[in-house]
Amino acid sequence: MIVVMQKDCTEKQIEEVQRRIEERGLKGHLSKGTERTVIGVVGQTYPELRDELELLNGVLEVVRISRPYKLSSREFQPEDTVVRVGNVAIGGDKDFAVMAGPCSVESREQVLATARAVKAAGAAVLRGGAFKPRTSPYSFRGLGQEGLEYLAEARAETGLPVITEVMSPGDVELVARYADILQIGTRNAQNFNLLEEVARSGKPVLLKRGFASTYEDWLLAAEYILAQGNRQLILCERGIRTFETYTRNTLDLVAIPVIRKLSHLPILIDPSHGTGKWYLVTPMSMAAAACGAHGLLIEVHPTPDLAKSDGAQSLTPENFAKLMNGVASVLQALGKRVTSVAARGT
Amino acid sequence: MIVVMQKDCTEKQIEEVQRRIEERGLKGHLSKGTERTVIGVVGQTYPELRDELELLNGVLEVVRISRPYKLSSREFQPEDTVVRVGNVAIGGDKDFAVMAGPCSVESREQVLATARAVKAAGAAVLRGGAFKPRTSPYSFRGLGQEGLEYLAEARAETGLPVITEVMSPGDVELVARYADILQIGTRNAQNFNLLEEVARSGKPVLLKRGFASTYEDWLLAAEYILAQGNRQLILCERGIRTFETYTRNTLDLVAIPVIRKLSHLPILIDPSHGTGKWYLVTPMSMAAAACGAHGLLIEVHPTPDLAKSDGAQSLTPENFAKLMNGVASVLQALGKRVTSVAARGT
Amino acid sequence: MIVVMQKDCTEKQIEEVQRRIEERGLKGHLSKGTERTVIGVVGQTYPELRDELELLNGVLEVVRISRPYKLSSREFQPEDTVVRVGNVAIGGDKDFAVMAGPCSVESREQVLATARAVKAAGAAVLRGGAFKPRTSPYSFRGLGQEGLEYLAEARAETGLPVITEVMSPGDVELVARYADILQIGTRNAQNFNLLEEVARSGKPVLLKRGFASTYEDWLLAAEYILAQGNRQLILCERGIRTFETYTRNTLDLVAIPVIRKLSHLPILIDPSHGTGKWYLVTPMSMAAAACGAHGLLIEVHPTPDLAKSDGAQSLTPENFAKLMNGVASVLQALGKRVTSVAARGT
Amino acid sequence: MIVVMQKDCTEKQIEEVQRRIEERGLKGHLSKGTERTVIGVVGQTYPELRDELELLNGVLEVVRISRPYKLSSREFQPEDTVVRVGNVAIGGDKDFAVMAGPCSVESREQVLATARAVKAAGAAVLRGGAFKPRTSPYSFRGLGQEGLEYLAEARAETGLPVITEVMSPGDVELVARYADILQIGTRNAQNFNLLEEVARSGKPVLLKRGFASTYEDWLLAAEYILAQGNRQLILCERGIRTFETYTRNTLDLVAIPVIRKLSHLPILIDPSHGTGKWYLVTPMSMAAAACGAHGLLIEVHPTPDLAKSDGAQSLTPENFAKLMNGVASVLQALGKRVTSVAARGT
Repeated sequence: MIVVMQKDCTEKQIEEVQRRIEERGLKGHLSKGTERTVIGVVGQTYPELRDELELLNGVLEVVRISRPYKLSSREFQPEDTVVRVGNVAIGGDKDFAVMAGPCSVESREQVLATARAVKAAGAAVLRGGAFKPRTSPYSFRGLGQEGLEYLAEARAETGLPVITEVMSPGDVELVARYADILQIGTRNAQNFNLLEEVARSGKPVLLKRGFASTYEDWLLAAEYILAQGNRQLILCERGIRTFETYTRNTLDLVAIPVIRKLSHLPILIDPSHGTGKWYLVTPMSMAAAACGAHGLLIEVHPTPDLAKSDGAQSLTPENFAKLMNGVASVLQALGKRVTSVAARGT
Repeated sequence: MIVVMQKDCTEKQIEEVQRRIEERGLKGHLSKGTERTVIGVVGQTYPELRDELELLNGVLEVVRISRPYKLSSREFQPEDTVVRVGNVAIGGDKDFAVMAGPCSVESREQVLATARAVKAAGAAVLRGGAFKPRTSPYSFRGLGQEGLEYLAEARAETGLPVITEVMSPGDVELVARYADILQIGTRNAQNFNLLEEVARSGKPVLLKRGFASTYEDWLLAAEYILAQGNRQLILCERGIRTFETYTRNTLDLVAIPVIRKLSHLPILIDPSHGTGKWYLVTPMSMAAAACGAHGLLIEVHPTPDLAKSDGAQSLTPENFAKLMNGVASVLQALGKRVTSVAARGT
Repeated sequence: MIVVMQKDCTEKQIEEVQRRIEERGLKGHLSKGTERTVIGVVGQTYPELRDELELLNGVLEVVRISRPYKLSSREFQPEDTVVRVGNVAIGGDKDFAVMAGPCSVESREQVLATARAVKAAGAAVLRGGAFKPRTSPYSFRGLGQEGLEYLAEARAETGLPVITEVMSPGDVELVARYADILQIGTRNAQNFNLLEEVARSGKPVLLKRGFASTYEDWLLAAEYILAQGNRQLILCERGIRTFETYTRNTLDLVAIPVIRKLSHLPILIDPSHGTGKWYLVTPMSMAAAACGAHGLLIEVHPTPDLAKSDGAQSLTPENFAKLMNGVASVLQALGKRVTSVAARGT
Repeated sequence: MIVVMQKDCTEKQIEEVQRRIEERGLKGHLSKGTERTVIGVVGQTYPELRDELELLNGVLEVVRISRPYKLSSREFQPEDTVVRVGNVAIGGDKDFAVMAGPCSVESREQVLATARAVKAAGAAVLRGGAFKPRTSPYSFRGLGQEGLEYLAEARAETGLPVITEVMSPGDVELVARYADILQIGTRNAQNFNLLEEVARSGKPVLLKRGFASTYEDWLLAAEYILAQGNRQLILCERGIRTFETYTRNTLDLVAIPVIRKLSHLPILIDPSHGTGKWYLVTPMSMAAAACGAHGLLIEVHPTPDLAKSDGAQSLTPENFAKLMNGVASVLQALGKRVTSVAARGT
């Protein structure tokens, strides 16, 4: 952090800034230029310090020169984190993990049929929502524990590990009993109590980007989980809110190379929520594969037009199989491969 | 909801749409034009129905013609909701309620001093955070129960009712024991489990707009609270996220006349978070008063440059007194008045 | 500008940065801390220098510490600019100028009727579009020179000076022959050739904010005009593009105190385009008056439902008269007044 | 367009709506449901009609059911437009055209060296700016005609056709004398006079998306060009403005499948401006190739750290060659190829 003083600042003001920096257990390094006096702050700073110093008399501006996240940064850990769930690897330079399944768990038959179909097409993880965050309280909000049981049954049959969302600290224990990966949804991306409770479960966590979170906000949210000692963390971009209304969100694929530069954490893409339209899911999946994503989160439903939620963005099993073929072609050209439970289980 | 069929749709496709509408317990009203066939959906629809119908063969587009929120709408309740907390009225055409206090409760002395100062200047409610949502896990996160006790003590001394934020369903019972109004913060604006738990406390609730929530998202979040039978609900605009970086957020004052048209709920403005800069707080407060806000939520700190959070946006007691004078002038010109505990207690 | 070097930078890299700074005619002031080496750049920098220096080896980050606009800044000119058009003053601490009229000039009768009505209600300037930027080429695009003639006739009759938009450098000479103030629309806010051509006309200019321009972009666009020697410049906020779809734009009233702090230029508000709905125009006008705007730009149409453009946001003469009353009340409470041609002409 | 009447509308109000529709040369098709009366508007509607009808008494809402652009739509022309410039094809299912070169033309040597390098790496078109739109008037604004001459010389030597930006209607004739493709920049995306003047030149046009233009705005801007009879039009996505500040813009790759669905026009991607950081250009180029882009616009500079504009986003010739290799691998996997002048010239 650098404190830039006003041109006409007094000696007393400079001393006051120095004193304040030292009170916070930091050091101030003074540099008087011909035009400006500048004070570098040395030590472990925190975002609020900026506000605090900017309010002092004689200060023109305070500029941050280091990023406020630590455990999630490449500086802290240069090598990629690889999250392992059973024999599925998520992260690193070779593997590409596809998680697929229905938006909501609606019935035993629906989950089992979808699980079989996505496994056959090469998915590595089964997704499905038992607790659903819905914009309107009048919408279908999931089967709860019954849904978790169906997911567990589908895992038992297919061998696919299960990812599912948890919405409330009070549900973490229950969901963690059934799921292999706990998902934090976009609306809870800054629900800090939930982040910490999920982290304490010890299970791998998938943290979606808030639909209005900057990369920095997102990595700071990740920090809440990592700081609890849980390093099994996967990030997932799912579209941000912009002025465009044709798509449900604007899927931000630039997040892939940016996050891979700033952080060691694996990054997945959710083009189903990211676009909101099934016919955009396959092209965006191929694009994600081409620019370095570690995998995908895809909505698949046996009969999308009967889905209780998000039908318009779900693929049929046939279209999902086509998506997997398209993605496999792109990955092969780059010397990468789709990770599958079966392939690695042998 | 209106289903617009494609020009070349078949009779069978029209029948399938009709059948689907009836399966959902609704009626389809068919209208064949020379160019287009259109089916009006009659009955209690829900947002997802749109996706569901748009996926059917032969359908061009489905357009919503009614708003998905009900209990919060003017149609449902034409007259203004007035929330009463002790002898303070929030809502309606005459009263303007100012809630003021520190962003975070930091110490007993700080809260008591601020409470006395804001009461003297005419505030009707004392605000102060005991549980603080912070973007970074390394920031100060509040005093918790100790903070609630200081707030209660300040209430006992000044007579000001207390508003404070609750961040987790597990904390609702504790916070409700101390506070007069429970606040839902912007990052929890779509934390639906929290909304319902807070509603069930039976206490008045202040629901901040999510920083990326549309008016419709916001009113649907309100619906979660109202649907639990708790009608003591206040809305609060606190800035939305845009491309502008000079201010912390873009404070959206248009929300005031829009919400007052769409809903019967009272609407307050938080210009402290909404702008992030103390010198913008007074002008925006006066503007809010001029266009029909029901009140303000203002950060006041005895020594903003020493505040543990959000110092840059806090007013000193002196500046807060000036703000109250400015607001009072505007209100007087409009035949309205600042509500104060004292004034009404007599 | 401050160049922050990487922790492990070499002496040679520091020298290269210093050399580059000197090549640009600037001076580098070196400061070696225990953790970081920092180089302050002294002299007249420019925005691109940041990119240039950030690319050099060993550089971590380059931070700007001064604003890139000059002639429009308060530092350059501490006292308010007051633009005078006939006997109407725009700017300063007392006067509030209302410019009103139809979105498009549609006929002689329409312009004359509207001019009389807005003058009667207290407007100081007549607005009206003869050249209309339209999103679609199939929309009505204005009467051109014929429209300018009607505006001139309305001025002759009422004494109201005229403001109208110019869209192309080739039209500046023509429009300047008729108009008293030349308006740059939001879609041309960064049409730099047009900005310069309009400035060279010597006429007062009203520059609307681009709907996706930051305050800095806007003041830099102003700089294009001021740098041509034309200081008769008025800024006008007219709504920015956000994720909200209920209103046509999000009117940003915070721009008023921000611009007044950063710049000496007068700032007007256009709540008609800023909201897109006539019933929001009056509350937002009153709010603008309460937080320091120097005036308004309002669409008035004798029969809004017959308007060829933007009918939904136009006020009837009756509603405009009510708006003027509401605004006058607010201004009076603040010791200000509506400027009118008549009042000052006597 | 569908007019939805209020529940309690009167017969007279319905008649008035019908009358207005007929006055506009359209037909109204009445449909009375049990709950709602709805009037379908048949004929060639225009965007403003919505506002006009919504203002009438008794009208609840007016909903559009057809898109306002015509000539640019897939409905108007189902097969892909392929723009031919010399022997380079832009558009269609096989070819991928890369346009590369410096942001600004700075000197004869710089242009010639870059032209040779990008041709060697497989570019099909040479880009370079002679007239530069700059946010600040104090930045380098291009060499003008001298720059055009250098570009023409580079074309003569390498055989690469030239694309360059034109900023003002008055410059179209001059630029068209030198360039093979005229480029409209993002800040002029709704400079309608310029769009029409450029169209009338008869030259192929590349139209960048406005940084705050929706897909619909963009296709309507395209309509301005097509409506002049010039069908040699290429679209180019270059990033939109969002709340994210890490990148200069948010590159929207979803635009590729969306535009290809809505329109027959070719779509290119400019990841240099779209991201603002050179290390993001190659991954986003590969992603663009994977999801169906027709080509790229890439900034290449022999010495990016000496560039007079946008150095931070320019590739060195070496990095550009790597980009071309990466893109070629992806294209090959999809049965597509990089178009090159040489390859096709034989």
